[in-house]
Amino acid sequence: MRMAELSRITGVSVPTIKYYLREGLLPAGERTSPNQARYDDTHVHRLKMVRALVEVAGLSIAAVRDVLEAADLDPHDVLGEVQSRLPPTVPEGAEEPADAAYELVTDLIERRGWKAGPDSPPGRALATAIRSLAEMGRDDLVALVEVYAEGVEKMAAVDVRTVIRGRGMEDVIEGVVLGTVIGDTMISSLRRLAHQHVSAELLGEGE
Amino acid sequence: MRMAELSRITGVSVPTIKYYLREGLLPAGERTSPNQARYDDTHVHRLKMVRALVEVAGLSIAAVRDVLEAADLDPHDVLGEVQSRLPPTVPEGAEEPADAAYELVTDLIERRGWKAGPDSPPGRALATAIRSLAEMGRDDLVALVEVYAEGVEKMAAVDVRTVIRGRGMEDVIEGVVLGTVIGDTMISSLRRLAHQHVSAELLGEGE
Repeated sequence: MRMAELSRITGVSVPTIKYYLREGLLPAGERTSPNQARYDDTHVHRLKMVRALVEVAGLSIAAVRDVLEAADLDPHDVLGEVQSRLPPTVPEGAEEPADAAYELVTDLIERRGWKAGPDSPPGRALATAIRSLAEMGRDDLVALVEVYAEGVEKMAAVDVRTVIRGRGMEDVIEGVVLGTVIGDTMISSLRRLAHQHVSAELLGEGE
Repeated sequence: MRMAELSRITGVSVPTIKYYLREGLLPAGERTSPNQARYDDTHVHRLKMVRALVEVAGLSIAAVRDVLEAADLDPHDVLGEVQSRLPPTVPEGAEEPADAAYELVTDLIERRGWKAGPDSPPGRALATAIRSLAEMGRDDLVALVEVYAEGVEKMAAVDVRTVIRGRGMEDVIEGVVLGTVIGDTMISSLRRLAHQHVSAELLGEGE
C-alpha cells in the first residue's frame, strides 16, 4: 500500500508517518520509484504500536526508539533489556543507592522472597520515589509500598503467564513492551477510578 | 533564608530555582532589597514537591503548574479537580467515547459497583488504552483489566484512608497529589520488580 493508505488505515497523519520514518521508529517502505514506497501489514502494526507508546503511554520519541531497538535485538536477555529501557527511569544525577530508601527496597525484596534486583532500573526508581516522599515527611505514603507490593505480585504473575503464551519471540517481546507500558496506563487509570469510588463511599457524594 | 541556602537544603540548583520561580511553580520570596529575596520552610517544602513531580513522576512543567493551581484553589471539588489534571490524560483528538472500549469500561465499573465515571479523565484514558491494545489484536492484554481492577481496588481503599487522615485541607491535597503520581511510580516500579521475579521463577535464572 501507499503511504496515504497506511495513514487512512491507522489514522496517523502523513506528516506524522514521515516524522516517524525520519526518526527511525518505522522501517522504510520498499522503494517503488524515487518518490514512492510501498508499505505492508508490518508497517500498519508497527505504526499502531508506536502510536500506543507515544499517545497512550506518553513515552518520548527517544524512549520509543530506545525500546524498539532493544525489541529488535535478539540477545538472550532481551526481556531484561526492554524492561531496563522503559520508564519509570531513574532521574539523571540521582544519588547513589546507599541510603535508607535503598535499604527499604532491598529489605522489601528480601522479605517477599523476590528474585529481583534492588540495583536494577525499577529498583532504583522505587528508591528514588521513596526518598522523595521521605524528604517531604510523608512516611504515611512511604508505608503504602507494602500494600502496593502485595497488589502487584498478583498482577505480575498473570502478566508474565499471559505474555509468554505468545506465538514466537516477536509476539512475546511485543507483549512485554505493550503489557508493561500500556499496562501501567490501565493500572493508573483504574486506580483513579477506584479513588473516585472510595472517596464517594467515605466522604459522601461530593467526591 | 537566601536562595543559595534554599538551593543547598533542597539540592535543587539556583538556575533551576530561578526557572521554577519564572514558571510560577514556586511562589516568590519576600523581597528584602531590589536584588534579594528571603525564602522560608514553605519554599523548601514546595520545592521538594515540584522536584518530586518533575523528576520522579516525570510530569511536564505545564502539568505541574496545572496541578498546583488546582491544589491552591479551595473549591468543594478540589480532589476531583486535582485528579482530572493528573496524568494519564486522554490524547488530544482522541475518538469520542462511544465504542467497544468505552462499553467495556462502563461495564467494568458497573459490575464492580464503583461510583466512578466512565466519562471522567481516567475513564477515558482507560478506554483509550484498551482501544489501542484491541486495535493491535492484543485481546489477551485487554483481558488483564479484570486482574488490575481487582488489585487497584484494595490499593485505592488504603490510599484514600491514608490521605484523608491529613492535618487540614492542605495536607490532604498534598497527599492526593503525591499519593497519586508518586504512588504510580512506586506501583509501576514494584510491578517491574515482580515481573523480574515471576520471569525468573517461570523461565529460570536467565532473566
